[in-house]
Amino acid sequence: MATPFTSKVDTLRPAYGFDDISLAPGTDTIDPADVDLAQDFCGIPLASPIIASAMDAVVSPTTAGLIRAQGCLAAINLEGLWFRYADPAPCFAAIAAAPKESVQALFAQLYAQPIDATLIPRRIAEMRAAGAPAIVAATPQAIGTYGDAVIAAGVDLLIIQSQVSSARHIASGYAPLELSAFVARAGAPVAIGNTSNAAAAYALMEQGAAAIFVGVGPGNACTTREVLGIGVPQVTAVSDVAAARDAYLADSGRYVPVVADGGIRKGGEIAKALAVGADVVMIGSPLARASEAPGHGYNWGMAAPSPTLPRGTRIEVGTVGSIEQVLNGPSRVTDGSENLIGAVRQSAAALGVRNVRGFRDVEVMHAPAAATEGKSWQRGR
Amino acid sequence: MATPFTSKVDTLRPAYGFDDISLAPGTDTIDPADVDLAQDFCGIPLASPIIASAMDAVVSPTTAGLIRAQGCLAAINLEGLWFRYADPAPCFAAIAAAPKESVQALFAQLYAQPIDATLIPRRIAEMRAAGAPAIVAATPQAIGTYGDAVIAAGVDLLIIQSQVSSARHIASGYAPLELSAFVARAGAPVAIGNTSNAAAAYALMEQGAAAIFVGVGPGNACTTREVLGIGVPQVTAVSDVAAARDAYLADSGRYVPVVADGGIRKGGEIAKALAVGADVVMIGSPLARASEAPGHGYNWGMAAPSPTLPRGTRIEVGTVGSIEQVLNGPSRVTDGSENLIGAVRQSAAALGVRNVRGFRDVEVMHAPAAATEGKSWQRGR
Amino acid sequence: MATPFTSKVDTLRPAYGFDDISLAPGTDTIDPADVDLAQDFCGIPLASPIIASAMDAVVSPTTAGLIRAQGCLAAINLEGLWFRYADPAPCFAAIAAAPKESVQALFAQLYAQPIDATLIPRRIAEMRAAGAPAIVAATPQAIGTYGDAVIAAGVDLLIIQSQVSSARHIASGYAPLELSAFVARAGAPVAIGNTSNAAAAYALMEQGAAAIFVGVGPGNACTTREVLGIGVPQVTAVSDVAAARDAYLADSGRYVPVVADGGIRKGGEIAKALAVGADVVMIGSPLARASEAPGHGYNWGMAAPSPTLPRGTRIEVGTVGSIEQVLNGPSRVTDGSENLIGAVRQSAAALGVRNVRGFRDVEVMHAPAAATEGKSWQRGR
Amino acid sequence: MATPFTSKVDTLRPAYGFDDISLAPGTDTIDPADVDLAQDFCGIPLASPIIASAMDAVVSPTTAGLIRAQGCLAAINLEGLWFRYADPAPCFAAIAAAPKESVQALFAQLYAQPIDATLIPRRIAEMRAAGAPAIVAATPQAIGTYGDAVIAAGVDLLIIQSQVSSARHIASGYAPLELSAFVARAGAPVAIGNTSNAAAAYALMEQGAAAIFVGVGPGNACTTREVLGIGVPQVTAVSDVAAARDAYLADSGRYVPVVADGGIRKGGEIAKALAVGADVVMIGSPLARASEAPGHGYNWGMAAPSPTLPRGTRIEVGTVGSIEQVLNGPSRVTDGSENLIGAVRQSAAALGVRNVRGFRDVEVMHAPAAATEGKSWQRGR
Repeated sequence: MATPFTSKVDTLRPAYGFDDISLAPGTDTIDPADVDLAQDFCGIPLASPIIASAMDAVVSPTTAGLIRAQGCLAAINLEGLWFRYADPAPCFAAIAAAPKESVQALFAQLYAQPIDATLIPRRIAEMRAAGAPAIVAATPQAIGTYGDAVIAAGVDLLIIQSQVSSARHIASGYAPLELSAFVARAGAPVAIGNTSNAAAAYALMEQGAAAIFVGVGPGNACTTREVLGIGVPQVTAVSDVAAARDAYLADSGRYVPVVADGGIRKGGEIAKALAVGADVVMIGSPLARASEAPGHGYNWGMAAPSPTLPRGTRIEVGTVGSIEQVLNGPSRVTDGSENLIGAVRQSAAALGVRNVRGFRDVEVMHAPAAATEGKSWQRGR
Repeated sequence: MATPFTSKVDTLRPAYGFDDISLAPGTDTIDPADVDLAQDFCGIPLASPIIASAMDAVVSPTTAGLIRAQGCLAAINLEGLWFRYADPAPCFAAIAAAPKESVQALFAQLYAQPIDATLIPRRIAEMRAAGAPAIVAATPQAIGTYGDAVIAAGVDLLIIQSQVSSARHIASGYAPLELSAFVARAGAPVAIGNTSNAAAAYALMEQGAAAIFVGVGPGNACTTREVLGIGVPQVTAVSDVAAARDAYLADSGRYVPVVADGGIRKGGEIAKALAVGADVVMIGSPLARASEAPGHGYNWGMAAPSPTLPRGTRIEVGTVGSIEQVLNGPSRVTDGSENLIGAVRQSAAALGVRNVRGFRDVEVMHAPAAATEGKSWQRGR
Repeated sequence: MATPFTSKVDTLRPAYGFDDISLAPGTDTIDPADVDLAQDFCGIPLASPIIASAMDAVVSPTTAGLIRAQGCLAAINLEGLWFRYADPAPCFAAIAAAPKESVQALFAQLYAQPIDATLIPRRIAEMRAAGAPAIVAATPQAIGTYGDAVIAAGVDLLIIQSQVSSARHIASGYAPLELSAFVARAGAPVAIGNTSNAAAAYALMEQGAAAIFVGVGPGNACTTREVLGIGVPQVTAVSDVAAARDAYLADSGRYVPVVADGGIRKGGEIAKALAVGADVVMIGSPLARASEAPGHGYNWGMAAPSPTLPRGTRIEVGTVGSIEQVLNGPSRVTDGSENLIGAVRQSAAALGVRNVRGFRDVEVMHAPAAATEGKSWQRGR
Repeated sequence: MATPFTSKVDTLRPAYGFDDISLAPGTDTIDPADVDLAQDFCGIPLASPIIASAMDAVVSPTTAGLIRAQGCLAAINLEGLWFRYADPAPCFAAIAAAPKESVQALFAQLYAQPIDATLIPRRIAEMRAAGAPAIVAATPQAIGTYGDAVIAAGVDLLIIQSQVSSARHIASGYAPLELSAFVARAGAPVAIGNTSNAAAAYALMEQGAAAIFVGVGPGNACTTREVLGIGVPQVTAVSDVAAARDAYLADSGRYVPVVADGGIRKGGEIAKALAVGADVVMIGSPLARASEAPGHGYNWGMAAPSPTLPRGTRIEVGTVGSIEQVLNGPSRVTDGSENLIGAVRQSAAALGVRNVRGFRDVEVMHAPAAATEGKSWQRGR
């Protein structure tokens, strides 16, 4: 036995999710009225650091306008129902009405309808008419086919999003999207996601990404992790990509905002994402619960319709209040799912934080949420 | 890529809650009759290290007297129902009777009634008449308005308590309370809370705080942590502030007691708080369960009535026995929620501890309470 | 701020319970038939390393004989019903029949009956007649009163057991038991428990203890830990006291066996206790489940009858099989609660262990039992 | 006290299971069509890295053929019903129909029927006729009796499998199997399992093992761990044995594949096993759920029939789809239990992995699956 044993598990890096950490107050507090959450995001003024996910159950041209009226942003899904059907309302109604055992087949059928290129300028015009910047999200495959049509229609921000975005995609059967070249001719900012890896994010910034979306199997119980074994707890992923952003800024002088996408449902999670370096968070389910959401109290992910390896399915999220209540309150519930922006402001005040970037100075503790304490008599403090 | 990546999550400090630790016996034991739990607390003699929380469902002038009769203390809430209504009994009855879905609106309505300054001397006189020292708790905002009236009425101890107390509060719209100046003119000891940060606590001691209350989102499952992302597990918070107390004592010669406020429901948690440096613990829910408690078997925190971002709500805690039974027994239950002081005395005996400060010599182990063992056949030992 | 902050929680030692560890096979295996579990225990030959707890629901003179017939030992409780009542059968029947809400009061009443000194020689004779060595357990208080009577009656082993046994007990109101002197005049081996501290155990060995019982709040969910805050997870406690035993052997040449008492219900836990240094384990509930057990399917600890601070209560453990089945099988269940000795033998075989002390060479891994895997489709391997 | 205390628990090595880790994407991705999962396994071409467990409820000669048609392999159990009964169909029907309380007795009765040596060549011929290589698994005891008959019948691969396989088995009552000698005369590759120890695996390779099966009490909640205290979480076990394989390759030039056997039910777990060094995985329950499986929706382990210390029992796994659907899809469920190979391919693509060995370059994070997040609103991403 000449060669020593080197077991891979002896050098595992620990990774953290939202439930693993907590924010610790310091020596200062600040009046909530003195907290300013505004920033510039890819050239778009953003009053509060929230973008609605490009999910069919969340963002329509109409809800994009309502969300913008609350000082936030919304992305629409180029491969969603709004670009496949002139009137997708019957699709949404059918999904909401379908029995559980047949909804997966219904997804497969509805999403088999091809994208209708004529709807691209129409939806973009509708978003603008509703008062919202035109933000469109699509996979690299769809960008390959419809990218020029989207550019021609004029967008304020294009998000190229896939389950795992890398700095280099290898394919022998087709020519992968050349990001640098596409960015050069797009004439609009192009954000990229999702990634969780600092080196990949840095390379994407070098290729011209306007923003990086972070989130790959971000939840400890998410389907991607069960089906594929892949997932980076979101706190670690955001912290790592934020480190790449800071390094790229130091090296290039360009600031590329980082968007925490996935695993965020409550005000506390937004504050935590900002504290580990996010500029903005992307949320889906909290807004799918709004009364105006297209999903009628249901939500589903982009991987749900897959005909061969579905991951995720239709989830009943319920309806809790208006988009205004979800984002800016007033909240009538006590679980943190309403008045998300008010919660972030109050959190900033208690932490002595003046603005979004100020969250990065807050001490983050490793403090796992214990299941055992959940049954205690609770206190309001 | 010239600049190395520095990910914030690579240097997280672990934080501990009550369920994460356990106390380990040493080489000595002592007869329970030889344990002496008495101390001086801000000039008030205290037979047992327990203060009742300034929660409406717990402390009225009457229960303050009953709690004092058991050798403990109680604080009354200046912003509670007792200072808004000459006769708050109908309020308590309405809260207990309200259906779950409307209780939050009822809170908002009842607590919208302004504070009646004429009730300040009246309640203080009632506390004294019941045999209790006059201990009043209030937020900095209320102190700004009613502080002089409270001082004029004569208090034994004033507790300025907010969700997060800092050493420096920044506000452009109003003049924050100047603690040093207020302490100088108060003519009574002024305690400050809640904090969880050693540096903030040290600065508050320098500003004249008579005692420091510790507890910011202390429970791993508490609402503050979900809604705001903020929370310091209580064992770490108490240990840190106790370290500041010891340093301040070494530097100044003045001893500022530390009160563990939050997350304490059982005798074991009191012993643990003392072992990591608390002088006293503040408890709410265990006393809300007493038959004489004003809450009729319910409890709610101060943040529950918030009209825009309610955190916490009415909790049904039930009624288990008299204040005497809860504090000094005899206990008829086996879960540690009655005879709290007897339990602390017995714990001290088994640990060879002679008095409250003696707990600090006890070894504390990191020994998380496992959910899996909860279903085992239990033993009485 | 001249003095640095030193927070006690920054140096917590991790402690382990049975569910936190697992035993790892090595390079050898052995035929189960070649495993020999016998040893000498305080001068008594012991075929298998199990002693039945001195609990009323477990050990009567009759069951002591049945347990001995299986190659194990049993201790009877000097302060139990067998020494208070000439015929305790009606007591056991009443406890089994009592409704849940009144059982605590029934305990208090039944155990208020004084010890009848004339029953001491009678029970000892009954144990011997049943074929069992006379092993009696009692608290230091009872030994103070009845110790000489027990010695006069002739015992094979006396176990002085209290919730926490220290090397030095301090009491101003009475003269604590002088262990060295008592051991000197006892004329029989005197074992001491329970402790969890290596230094205390070493001192007790110096004072003449024949064996050390280990277990103070050994379970992560045990009542002592909730009520008093005290508890040392059993794996750490046994490992620490075993270290003291080994050091004392090196220093004095005398070998003092270590008994793991508490938290053991299954074969796997016995193997783990032996692997971290126990010579013997003491078990209660697994034997309370035997059809011949006095408790009629119930069990209760010695602290349950306390009139002021009851800890633990009557637990329904059910009845699963005979004492023979529980100890030597055959087992008809698959959860490890029957054929405990067969399981230890099979474990030894798979680990390449030839005898009880051989377990100490087995690698112990930190491998917490995850709640999440409990729902998986199980496999028999 | 001259000798210092050395407590064994102060040097515990942490061990990891599948739920403790997650795979992290890197800088590259790859088109799923460019992933090639094929390899040579003990001289048999294997399109996908899956072998069906030698469990009666999973592998018959017929299902061995169906599994081979999907590019995988299957092992048949020499001590199973197929080698005890000319027609075992009535046995399977009886097991599926037995009430829960009598199934253990039925197991004991059915498996008491002796092995019929005339069935050995018959079953091997049936496997070949069904298109499957003849892979037979048996314990060392059975190999001692029937090994030559199996060799004479001609097998493609023989797996000698016991609960814990060591490099050296000690027995005074019989002559243990001499592995080196048996391998020399077998004329077919001989794989050995199960082990979890690197040194034992290395020694077995030196003795001529063609492959090493890894898995000893691999699940955190498995019966072996409860009953015997023994178990090595599978990620650590596979990683350790893979380290031995790499060392043996460096020392000897011979490559001995490592098979992760146990604890694998979903695509994510296969990807994780490959990432820590497995060449192949062995799965049972996922295939017991196939409509063609002999177990009629039930599964049981080899230890279940033990008449004295049964571990594991009949588990109802249900029936979800065909063998083709389980292995190659299409999947109609979203929990990762169908289209296992498709999931591995998709995982490889997202991780930039070109083939089975490429998984070893993937970063593995310590990222425990939290129970608390399980209740979140899920997302498909």
